[in-house]
Formats: sequence, C-alpha cells, structure tokens
Amino acid sequence: VSLRTSDPVELLAAARAGDRRALARLLTLVEDSGAAAREVAALVHPLGGSARTVGITGAPGAGKSTLTSALVDRVRRDDEDVAVLAIDPTSPFTGGAILGDRVRMGDHALDEGVFIRSMATRGHLGGLSVAAPAAVRVLDAVGWPWVLLETVGVGQVEVEVAGEADTTVVVLNPGWGDAVQASKAGLMEIADVFVVNKADRPGASEARRDIEGMLSLAGHGHARVDPSAEEVDPVAPWRPPIVETVALDGTGVDELWQAVRAHGRWAAQTGELDRRRARRTARELERIVAVRLLAMATELGEGATFAALRADVDARRLDPWSAADRLLDGFGPGRPAAG
Amino acid sequence: VSLRTSDPVELLAAARAGDRRALARLLTLVEDSGAAAREVAALVHPLGGSARTVGITGAPGAGKSTLTSALVDRVRRDDEDVAVLAIDPTSPFTGGAILGDRVRMGDHALDEGVFIRSMATRGHLGGLSVAAPAAVRVLDAVGWPWVLLETVGVGQVEVEVAGEADTTVVVLNPGWGDAVQASKAGLMEIADVFVVNKADRPGASEARRDIEGMLSLAGHGHARVDPSAEEVDPVAPWRPPIVETVALDGTGVDELWQAVRAHGRWAAQTGELDRRRARRTARELERIVAVRLLAMATELGEGATFAALRADVDARRLDPWSAADRLLDGFGPGRPAAG
Repeated sequence: VSLRTSDPVELLAAARAGDRRALARLLTLVEDSGAAAREVAALVHPLGGSARTVGITGAPGAGKSTLTSALVDRVRRDDEDVAVLAIDPTSPFTGGAILGDRVRMGDHALDEGVFIRSMATRGHLGGLSVAAPAAVRVLDAVGWPWVLLETVGVGQVEVEVAGEADTTVVVLNPGWGDAVQASKAGLMEIADVFVVNKADRPGASEARRDIEGMLSLAGHGHARVDPSAEEVDPVAPWRPPIVETVALDGTGVDELWQAVRAHGRWAAQTGELDRRRARRTARELERIVAVRLLAMATELGEGATFAALRADVDARRLDPWSAADRLLDGFGPGRPAAG
Repeated sequence: VSLRTSDPVELLAAARAGDRRALARLLTLVEDSGAAAREVAALVHPLGGSARTVGITGAPGAGKSTLTSALVDRVRRDDEDVAVLAIDPTSPFTGGAILGDRVRMGDHALDEGVFIRSMATRGHLGGLSVAAPAAVRVLDAVGWPWVLLETVGVGQVEVEVAGEADTTVVVLNPGWGDAVQASKAGLMEIADVFVVNKADRPGASEARRDIEGMLSLAGHGHARVDPSAEEVDPVAPWRPPIVETVALDGTGVDELWQAVRAHGRWAAQTGELDRRRARRTARELERIVAVRLLAMATELGEGATFAALRADVDARRLDPWSAADRLLDGFGPGRPAAG
C-alpha cells in the first residue's frame, strides 16, 4: 500500500493483508471521528464478529500495563495473535513510553503476532465512548482474534468503556480499602474476574476478603463456575473469581488467563455473550445518536438566539434549564423515520 | 427547618440562614438531577455570582486532598469561609473517609466556616459535567465566598470539569515525566497555577524545568505578572506561576494562595474572568441542551424502530452510523423558538 493513501477501502485491504501501518492509519481515521470514520465503520462492520475482547481496568498504579503485557506473553504462548488498545493516560503503552519505560513494550516490538495501539482520552464529550468501540471493530475486522482493552478505572466515561468488553478484569492491589475505592469508582459492577496484583505484598488476603464481602453484599451466590471445566452448567450464575498475581514475574498469569477463558466459555454457552453484545450495540447506537444530537445542539449554539440566551443567563435573568427549554422549543422528531 | 422537608424553597431559605443539613439536601437534589434539580437551579440562579471558584486537580496520589485541606486552613486564617466540593473518587474527602483517613477532614469538622461535600463521579454521560456546576451555583447562592473544587485529573469529563473554575491549580509531583503525563491528560491547557507538591522529595527542580519547558512550547512568554502586586497590567499575559509545596507541613501554601489570589485579580482586571464565565455559561447551556437531546435519544431508543435497527446492526446488515441516520431521519428543529 502506498504510504500516502488515506482511502479507507485501500487501507482496509492492506490492513487485512497484514500491513500494520495501514491498520494504524485506519485507527487514526476512526479516532479523528470525521467523515472518514463513518466510512471506515461502514466498511469494517460486516467483516467483524469473531474477535474476543478483554477489558483490563483498575486505579492508576495497580499494575494494569504490566499485567496486560504478561497476558500478551501468555496468549502468544498458545500461538494466538493479540492486539492491545490502551486507553490509559498513565500506561507505559501511552504516556509511559515517552518516559523511557519502553522496556515492556520492547518485549513485543518485533513480534508480528502483537499489535499495540494507544488512544488518547481527550476530545469531545462522548468522543472516547464512541471511538473506542469503533477501534475495536476495526481490529476485529482486520482479523485480530484477541483484543485487550486497557483502560484506567477512574473517570465516568473510562469506566463505562472498560465495562463493555466481552470479559472485564478489574485489577486491585493488596491492602484493605482498595476494593472500597474500586466500588466507589463503579468497578465492582463491571468485573467478571478480579485480580489482586502485587500479591507478594502484605494484605493480599485482606483484599480478597474485601472483594468476597462485596460480592456477597451484591447478592452473588457462593456457587462458582469451575474455571477449568470445558462444559459449564448454563443455568449456573457466574461469581467473579479472584486471582492473585505478581505481574512482574508472571505469577498467577496462567490462572488469570484460565479464568478469562472460563468466563468466555460460560458467557458463550449461557447466551450471556450474545445478550452482552446486544446491550453493547444498543448503547453504541444510543451514543452515536447522542453525538449526532450533540452536533445539532452545537449548531443551535452557534445561532444568534443562543448568544442572546447565554447573555440572559449571565445577567441572571434566566436560569440555564429555562434557557435550554427556549432553545429546544419545537425541536423534535418531525416526520416518521423512512426506515 | 423540618428534617423532612424536600421543598426547594424551604430548603434554600434554611440553607441561606446557615442550616447545613438543608444545604446538604439541596446538593443531593442537584446531584439526583431530577425535576427538583431544575427547580433548585431556577431558585439559586438569580442569587449567585459572588463566589470565587478554585479548581485543584492532578493525578491520583499527587496530594490534592492534603493540599486542599491546607488551603482550607489558609483561607480560614483570613477569617473567610470556604466550601469544598470533592469530585475525586481517590480523595479522603470521599472514598478515603471510609478508609479511616478522617484525620484531615476532622481538622475542619467542627469549623462552621468550612463546608465539605463529596460528589460521586458516577452516573449518566454528561451527568457530572452538568451536576458539578449546578452544585457550585448552590454553594454560591447560599453565600460561600470561596468554593474549592477538588477533581481527579484523569478522565475526560473530570478534566473538563476541573478546567471550569475561575482559577485552576494543577498539582504535580517531583521527578521528570509527571508534566508529560499531565500534558497527555489535558491538564496543561487548563492550568492557571502549577504546584509541585511533595517538593521535599528529589526531582522538584526537574519537574519545574519540565513545566517551564512545556509552557514555553505552548507559546507562553516569559513576562510574568507579579503575584504580589495589587494592580496588574491589564495587557500583560498570564504565565502560570510554579509553586513548590509540601502540603503535609504547610510549606509553600501561603505562596500558593497568593498566586491563586493574584490570578483572580489579574483575571478580574483584565476582563478574563468575565470572558471565562461567559464561556462557562455557554458550555453549561450546550451541555444541558445535550442532556435534553440525549433524553430524546433514549426515548427514541425505547421505540420499536430502535430495537429493529439494533438487531440489524447485530446481524451486520447495517453499520451503527447508518442505523443512527435512520433513527434521526426527520429529527430536527420544527417551528422556530418561541423566545
């Protein structure tokens, strides 16, 4: 492929033939979310559906990147290809690489079976939550069987994105209280597998106890799907297992990967995977609709009426909600959808 | 005021008379963002306009809460009242309080001149970015002259909220690279004052050099407003000063507060404060419009057409953007605003 083409059709063909620069350029188009992003979305959509996505999230400093890197090693040992999408400003894959922390990335730099891409968390409201699933669809369409989605578990959009993988791994650290923090950040509801990373430090058992306590509070039964079983009971509920790891030396990473795959089997066999994907599509559609409506709102925001209403709010003649009412007066569905 | 009233008019009257529980309840109404939130917004809007807001943001672990607490002490020494709105899941004011880290909060617990409120970062897309300014308006209307807004500097919504104070303080730590991370998270553009906290640790001068370098790259001139001058040159651009602090023992906090007030004087005298508040109102208005439109989108999302289109997307007959097109067909401004 020519180094200079920006034609989505050409780029997609090249990316599917293994051209990594073409893939990178497709992802840039998707991230820029301009007109080309739409074209890419339309092109890749029919091609996808076989990738499995694994979200890896937790507070900054929990060791998500080291764990992601260790999981990449683990997946490669089975000779499966794996892509990483890092949406974590504190990750060595993104910010950290600049800090000379290239060592771990370097482990995979020459491996054709690994593709690592970082994504900025900046941009418009809703930008990340639309761009991340779009990027996953590209990686899926190009043929990456595994997509690891590393996201920082802080920030409402970020946590939302983290929860939309097929399987979500929440990474905590030893010590009492980390689980409470994670719960406040909204991470408990999205966890399919818990990791207590840095488990060689004191407090790993307290962390485990905390998690168990919160799971029971949340109404999870004690019945647990056996992670090593090939067949699962399709009516058995999934209680998120807790895996202790030391990502730096690889301790527990095998067990973690086993738990991830067990969740995948359970989700596929119980129909949960399809339900989850349908919910994800619904949310993605809602968000795209919201982004489109937001664009309409911004257009409204450029009109003379908007400026006058803004001045009224500043002068305290009008509160913001009443001003919004006036802007939106008459705004709504006109004729029914052509369907 | 009765412990049980939830009438916004009564609550506001009581809060303005100094009833802290009434204030707390008003803030809960605003956070819940139901119909009562609108009523509260309409009530408080004409009363506000005198509070000064100071955003304090930075990565988790940078020491924002300790610094916020030290600033509260500093403000109180001038016998001025101060409210803290903590939107930081890693803050001891919010999550941390549960962890037994009540010590610093306890310093202010009996002080009638201090009001501390935490706010969850969870909820709907746009929820925080609408609820936080609404909460500031309540504190303003009730008469708090200073509102410190502590937000975690990770997450796109959170960084956006942090940047919407009258003066924004970005907290970094010693060592090379923290400024690069902050820049990636979008914090450099929103900083009016930089703090290198934990400046007793090695690397404070490297951090300062990093920040200076990034400021120069961003086109900031070297001319600097003298933070100790009462009158400022209204055409002099503001170059964010860098203050070194050790929040734990109060070192540098005086200088920081001086820098914050200097920025306030500069902003007021140059007209920047008015411009900034007008921009803030415009963004708030856009967001409320967006939230309203999002509600319309969700209504669309409940219709039969939505379900059919979602199924088409899942079956890969239609890509999400084209599905959104069909949903929005005919959607738009109908008759002109009644104004």
